[in-house]
Amino acid sequence: MHLGRIKGTVVATMVAEGLEGVRLLIVQPLNRELKPKGGMIVAADALKMAAPEDLIYFVASREAALAMEETFVPVDHAIVGIVDELHWSTGEAVE
Amino acid sequence: MHLGRIKGTVVATMVAEGLEGVRLLIVQPLNRELKPKGGMIVAADALKMAAPEDLIYFVASREAALAMEETFVPVDHAIVGIVDELHWSTGEAVE
Amino acid sequence: MHLGRIKGTVVATMVAEGLEGVRLLIVQPLNRELKPKGGMIVAADALKMAAPEDLIYFVASREAALAMEETFVPVDHAIVGIVDELHWSTGEAVE
Amino acid sequence: MHLGRIKGTVVATMVAEGLEGVRLLIVQPLNRELKPKGGMIVAADALKMAAPEDLIYFVASREAALAMEETFVPVDHAIVGIVDELHWSTGEAVE
Amino acid sequence: MHLGRIKGTVVATMVAEGLEGVRLLIVQPLNRELKPKGGMIVAADALKMAAPEDLIYFVASREAALAMEETFVPVDHAIVGIVDELHWSTGEAVE
Repeated sequence: MHLGRIKGTVVATMVAEGLEGVRLLIVQPLNRELKPKGGMIVAADALKMAAPEDLIYFVASREAALAMEETFVPVDHAIVGIVDELHWSTGEAVE
Repeated sequence: MHLGRIKGTVVATMVAEGLEGVRLLIVQPLNRELKPKGGMIVAADALKMAAPEDLIYFVASREAALAMEETFVPVDHAIVGIVDELHWSTGEAVE
Repeated sequence: MHLGRIKGTVVATMVAEGLEGVRLLIVQPLNRELKPKGGMIVAADALKMAAPEDLIYFVASREAALAMEETFVPVDHAIVGIVDELHWSTGEAVE
Repeated sequence: MHLGRIKGTVVATMVAEGLEGVRLLIVQPLNRELKPKGGMIVAADALKMAAPEDLIYFVASREAALAMEETFVPVDHAIVGIVDELHWSTGEAVE
Repeated sequence: MHLGRIKGTVVATMVAEGLEGVRLLIVQPLNRELKPKGGMIVAADALKMAAPEDLIYFVASREAALAMEETFVPVDHAIVGIVDELHWSTGEAVE
């Protein structure tokens, strides 16, 4: 899984079968310092409650579909947790 | 899923079983500013209606095959939505 | 799928079960200008007829195995089409 | 599989179905010299006993879920072994 | 599949279920000139006979597990062939 932050929403009326009603959010992957890392991705919101600027972690590839109610959907990134806190072995706590 | 723009078409008569009749488009992946990001990929058009220069999002790996009518096909990138609008948490709307 | 060009052949007598008799070719992935992009990969020839210097497209990961006659084989890249022509939305035709 | 070192823990109360009770650790992937390579990832602890600063190896993608007790969970990285020693063909032994 | 060279061995007593007795080798991926390309990976030896410094090719992701005797194991890279010779379309033969 990777850490990311919710940055926006995708609106699309023309979608493949299985994607009707699936909430798609734009996610910025983050590095350890919670700074942007690489390009934005579009992820399905498996929690149905992620909000703009939330710190989340997402799952990629086939496992993303497993997070959805209907698992045989063409989804390759899904938001599966909202982070409360990160603890580092160096003792710091973040967010 | 990743954002991309349709840039062309692939014509091939010699194809593996399961790929006969599948429409293959050349897609340029895009970043947040909707500028090209990385190299072109060849994606199957699961919507059967994506047009040149359309802003779309595509799914990769095993999930791509799930977007097709016949799901046990050797397809690893599929176009699964045509974007109407993108909303950013900063308040901007794009396209 | 990705565009590539056949650059060579791999000869191996010691192979894992399921790979006996599978033709393995060395493929150079290509970018839009059909110039080399990234390192060579070894792909199974699902068409059984790709020839040196052919412009082809290949599929990666689990989908590669789906292109083979026997689908539960340890294959992660397969050549699934020989390109006749590429059409760009800018109007150019290549190859 | 890839080598990595345990660097921290993720605390999240809002998680997707199947992730309740799964221990999530922050892992720094390592190179041959056991120096950091690329960004941190979040991995499920399939061993349930990896400790901060342990040298481990993790598995990615669909195989990660196979390491869990419940295999149809949205997990794409799992810690599957704690390294005792590495032997190089040059004769060195590390850790 | 990718070309690589065996560079070492991983010793681990604490492993996830399904990995007991699986031989894990350190592999250096190679480019066309058979020079190192990217970081080392840890791969299961599906042939059970790869030796230090052997030129091999390995398979990644779900297909890696398909190369093992027991296929539902958390393995994402497996050595599936020992290379005898490589032939290039330019006429050279290597190794």
